[in-house]
Amino acid sequence: MTDVLRPGEAARVAGIDEAVSLDELRLAARNHGMPLEALRYDLTPPGLHYLLVHYDIPFLDPASWRLEIGGHVATPLSLDLAALRSGPAVTHRVTLECAGNGRAKLLPRPVSQPWLDEAVGTAEWTGVSLASLLEEAGVLDGAVDVAFTGHDHGTERGVEQDYCRALSLSDAVSGDVLVAYEMNGAPLPPQHGAPVRLIVPGWYGMAHVKWLRSVEVLAEPFAGFQNEVAYRLRADADDPGTPVSRIQPRALVVPPGFPDFMTRRRIVDAGPVELFGRTWSGRAPVTGVELSVDGGLTWTQASLGPAASRYAWRSWSFTWDALPGEYVLCARATDERGPQPVEAPWNMQGMANNMAQSVPVTVR
Amino acid sequence: MTDVLRPGEAARVAGIDEAVSLDELRLAARNHGMPLEALRYDLTPPGLHYLLVHYDIPFLDPASWRLEIGGHVATPLSLDLAALRSGPAVTHRVTLECAGNGRAKLLPRPVSQPWLDEAVGTAEWTGVSLASLLEEAGVLDGAVDVAFTGHDHGTERGVEQDYCRALSLSDAVSGDVLVAYEMNGAPLPPQHGAPVRLIVPGWYGMAHVKWLRSVEVLAEPFAGFQNEVAYRLRADADDPGTPVSRIQPRALVVPPGFPDFMTRRRIVDAGPVELFGRTWSGRAPVTGVELSVDGGLTWTQASLGPAASRYAWRSWSFTWDALPGEYVLCARATDERGPQPVEAPWNMQGMANNMAQSVPVTVR
Repeated sequence: MTDVLRPGEAARVAGIDEAVSLDELRLAARNHGMPLEALRYDLTPPGLHYLLVHYDIPFLDPASWRLEIGGHVATPLSLDLAALRSGPAVTHRVTLECAGNGRAKLLPRPVSQPWLDEAVGTAEWTGVSLASLLEEAGVLDGAVDVAFTGHDHGTERGVEQDYCRALSLSDAVSGDVLVAYEMNGAPLPPQHGAPVRLIVPGWYGMAHVKWLRSVEVLAEPFAGFQNEVAYRLRADADDPGTPVSRIQPRALVVPPGFPDFMTRRRIVDAGPVELFGRTWSGRAPVTGVELSVDGGLTWTQASLGPAASRYAWRSWSFTWDALPGEYVLCARATDERGPQPVEAPWNMQGMANNMAQSVPVTVR
Repeated sequence: MTDVLRPGEAARVAGIDEAVSLDELRLAARNHGMPLEALRYDLTPPGLHYLLVHYDIPFLDPASWRLEIGGHVATPLSLDLAALRSGPAVTHRVTLECAGNGRAKLLPRPVSQPWLDEAVGTAEWTGVSLASLLEEAGVLDGAVDVAFTGHDHGTERGVEQDYCRALSLSDAVSGDVLVAYEMNGAPLPPQHGAPVRLIVPGWYGMAHVKWLRSVEVLAEPFAGFQNEVAYRLRADADDPGTPVSRIQPRALVVPPGFPDFMTRRRIVDAGPVELFGRTWSGRAPVTGVELSVDGGLTWTQASLGPAASRYAWRSWSFTWDALPGEYVLCARATDERGPQPVEAPWNMQGMANNMAQSVPVTVR
């Protein structure tokens, strides 16, 4: 028996001088971030949007796909794609970010998908309001949680499972949660959950269950792996921790100038440089973005663009008078609940590390 | 001055026990392979097709884009997108593979984009025949090479450049080379070269210049970086080496069963398992695929599917009677020029490593 079948294994943290393993590289070669120059697009084209697939991308036939809505409801529903599409269509522009974004910048590094800064993307998602579907099914008194199950199947720390995440009933029926069948006006691509996925605006990616097959209303609190074990902020292996939920504030800058192939270090010509970026927060509206060109020692306020949508990133810009020399650009956002940290907020599983981005630049 | 501005730097090979560096991880987080379960698609959806971007994805306005065709020709041409689209449209189904595929499986590991097995994809590319454009321009006597330049700009081993690759004149006017503006029937996505790229059926990816802006016919042999320095098979730093050109034979299997999240190890239920995969070669037609379940000690012939297109992958299948235990699946292709190796063909820059794939499987 191999250890993939041994349940209850704790998340692993790499040794202090342990470099990226083959396991981590294998995940990095499949999953992908958004190349940061694509921050220029208001809507991220599907192939540039970040992608994290826990197990394999399932191959589903849209013609035979059904969504089962059941559990603690008056009238269980079984909907095909046509039935879902016949409901009132709602579109939301939403910035999605992986809860593990920034993990590989932590020291020591929790061992999992090794994201740096780029696990983000913004799309317009079209579907039916989850609240209206639950109203149609008739949620019974005593319901507390709603569990969402996908068709994707695998093991994780020894637990065999279909990917399944729950929201509290109040989170499920508020906040514009969608059962979505279109991304940027086209049917969902396979890797983004075709034919149907959940969209939970403002929450990290783990909540947006892809390849959705069932919605189950629960009269008891949900205790599944992805809520109780995987996506938690823990100080150490014995800490029960707190659940990962809404996206913490972040600002990213389009790396200016042009790159070196291998190091991705930027080369910029001296003179005025128009810096441009995006900022978002799922927990509260962003109130400002600051820029540093000295690695975070001093900060200057950038100009915020218009807030186009409650759940999507907002542009910002800053004109930098660049003189020849070596610099480290940093950007940080502040939302109504406070600023983005410059030091990494470490936790056992490397979740929600929104420390400020650093972009080394040579001005010539 | 940082070393990104120092020209002539040799490619680096990692120390024998040196794990993946932050530089390599940064590339792996931007670029991405095709998740191997997507081998099931005849045509790879754009967001699943492998992607390697040397520098940044340029942002080009299709309305002002022009292709300049010049150099050693009678009539230089300047074509806009409408002019290009007004020519006779040709579509080819082409399997593209990165020349660096397999690099991270080499020991010692050349330091660059750290691909494992997945830098591949198949698409239908539509455009105008390069031969017909060159005929229109009138290639003059004495022409030897044709150089293709993209809008992507960066430095590589200290050499600042727009990405530029050349073909010999005979390779340029034969072999169905396309100046392509559509991928799978839609305008090219930004990351695949929008608005126009070169497609050189049968060649590794470096030849298929993206974001194409000029085609220059040369009366002298081309001596640019990407042909003379970057894409060569060298035994060591002093070896001038031989150019990387056509795709070597390869077979890949869709990893069966389901994965463990972290290790990607497969778990399969005992019984007959229908294995399915793809095979391709750019240098000669594939004549067979063999499968091993014992890590390459013994091999059995698989069934080849129909050859749909001269330049695209072909399906293959094999029924495996799986008994409980531990296995390593391998697949290898043979083309008219010989078999795919089981041992890695090492070279200084980690090019064209088509050693057979290995898939560890637990049958329960």
